[in-house]
Amino acid sequence: MNYELDEACRPYRGVFVVTDSTVDRLVMPLLADSEVLRDAKRLVIPAGEESKTTDSLIKIWEWLSAEGATRRSVLVCVGGGMITDLGGFAAATFKRGIAAIYLPTTLLAAVDASEGGKTGCNLGNLKNEVGCFAPPKAVILSALPFATLSRSEMLSGFGEMLKTGLIAARNIYDEVMRPDLLMNEREELIPLVEQCVAIKKRIVAKDPREEGLRKVLNFGHTVGHAFESLLLAEGRGVPHGIAVAHGLLAEMVVSHIMLGFPSAELYPYAEMLKDYYPRLDIDCSKTDELLRLMHHDKKNREADTINFTLLEQIGKPLYDIEVDTDTLRNALDIYRDLSL
Amino acid sequence: MNYELDEACRPYRGVFVVTDSTVDRLVMPLLADSEVLRDAKRLVIPAGEESKTTDSLIKIWEWLSAEGATRRSVLVCVGGGMITDLGGFAAATFKRGIAAIYLPTTLLAAVDASEGGKTGCNLGNLKNEVGCFAPPKAVILSALPFATLSRSEMLSGFGEMLKTGLIAARNIYDEVMRPDLLMNEREELIPLVEQCVAIKKRIVAKDPREEGLRKVLNFGHTVGHAFESLLLAEGRGVPHGIAVAHGLLAEMVVSHIMLGFPSAELYPYAEMLKDYYPRLDIDCSKTDELLRLMHHDKKNREADTINFTLLEQIGKPLYDIEVDTDTLRNALDIYRDLSL
Repeated sequence: MNYELDEACRPYRGVFVVTDSTVDRLVMPLLADSEVLRDAKRLVIPAGEESKTTDSLIKIWEWLSAEGATRRSVLVCVGGGMITDLGGFAAATFKRGIAAIYLPTTLLAAVDASEGGKTGCNLGNLKNEVGCFAPPKAVILSALPFATLSRSEMLSGFGEMLKTGLIAARNIYDEVMRPDLLMNEREELIPLVEQCVAIKKRIVAKDPREEGLRKVLNFGHTVGHAFESLLLAEGRGVPHGIAVAHGLLAEMVVSHIMLGFPSAELYPYAEMLKDYYPRLDIDCSKTDELLRLMHHDKKNREADTINFTLLEQIGKPLYDIEVDTDTLRNALDIYRDLSL
Repeated sequence: MNYELDEACRPYRGVFVVTDSTVDRLVMPLLADSEVLRDAKRLVIPAGEESKTTDSLIKIWEWLSAEGATRRSVLVCVGGGMITDLGGFAAATFKRGIAAIYLPTTLLAAVDASEGGKTGCNLGNLKNEVGCFAPPKAVILSALPFATLSRSEMLSGFGEMLKTGLIAARNIYDEVMRPDLLMNEREELIPLVEQCVAIKKRIVAKDPREEGLRKVLNFGHTVGHAFESLLLAEGRGVPHGIAVAHGLLAEMVVSHIMLGFPSAELYPYAEMLKDYYPRLDIDCSKTDELLRLMHHDKKNREADTINFTLLEQIGKPLYDIEVDTDTLRNALDIYRDLSL
């Protein structure tokens, strides 16, 4: 990986590294034989979604500026999705765009944040409310940093892998439905990660700006983002992929109601979720707030309707399905029953 | 113009207007019969370059978010370059990009900021240190707002027109060398403005991300930006095009030294500058600071060299000419002598 990184940085003059405090402590020592990382200027952002703010964005801009970064410099983003999204956004907008290279250190970032060209940061409690489309010049993939991940971070990565499986590849879904096995064999993950990345690449290439097909990647995310925003606002944030894993169940229920997605698929997923994932404890008093958050979600074309990506079957997603509020309330009730 | 604006806004759902306090007071009443402007939500930013900050950027983001703007909304930027650059940047990054329409109200914005796709804001005293490339969906051109412009704002617009003439069109240069005539016949400007915009469009189309040819548009700007930044830092900011008009003289001197640009062209320009433009009063004690600012300018590929666009003759620009510091000091001395 170090060799690959050094090679990727070679065309640029001036290498700048942005990372978070946890990665700096746990992962950076593992990468110590990369000449580029050793010699580069480094900015360390406090770890956690709380750092994905406009304040951090401005901090990166000001640091690049003060340290003399030019248009031919490269910003290497070493970390999870917080760092790749935020660093990617900073690079895309510093001097109207310098190069970025991502070195994802979480499973979630490896399967999801590193491919697709989306960058951004939060605005208050609103996830990725600002950002732009700007693909990194290179993504360096390795299982090495996965050794440092907590159980919860692994489950978060599995959430996005389950989604990828549900929309496009039964084999991925079936493998990740046994998370205990994968948890203990972290090197085994790389071929699955590469398959997830390849699927995402294929979809994004057909629709880079999410005007149509790319919306299938949002399966589980309309409800998942609402869960995530609500919990963040309540001061009990969860990793993105864990919110998505719950969002997947809720949107499978919506799929069942709207498109007859088979209930035979619903129950095993609900069991897996209960066995391995933490409960979110969002009771029915929060339904109105969840609906408000979904209305606000950028995936909806109009402020007054809620569009979903839904499944007819595993591997058969449909996008831009309008769902009315009553159906959604009903689905959220069923989700709660299934997940308790 | 109002009809044209209403037509341009028709494809979008939700029209948001950002403007500055001076335009809101002087120009908006002239546009009162536009249905779109009358009904749209409006954010007014305090007038002046001091507002082109990351704080204002965040203010626009938060306002769009709070007012329920969606991906299908449009942000109409009514104002000078501060508003079109800042509003354009906010639109390009809100929800990873919504549509922007520019209605330039200054001559400078009409000839320069409205075309080319550059957006941005300042970072501290550094001009346009952050931003991105994102063309507006439409630009609405009219001489109507020019009636509200001060002499100084007209001279600022003439600065960019002189530059356009110098790099590509002798006829524009010759006309604007008599600024008193144009000052009194503001409607006459529109054909010249259109010619400037057409020249810029042609150049930008060949090199949208400023990797080569587009650099010719920076003639006068390496020194001009340094003047502008220095004066801003000293609390005596001047309009962009006035700094550029002085930068043009300095870079004509550099062109003379480096490429034999004819001195016969130099003197009439210096006379015109002295007759019509305010003096900048930057003495030789500031040379080191100016050089530092030029090193920092994003137009330079390396932090340790200074590249210029220079002229062999009027209409014959060359870009990426490396100029050493001694030559530059010498040229700045000559510029000072000529402009006093």
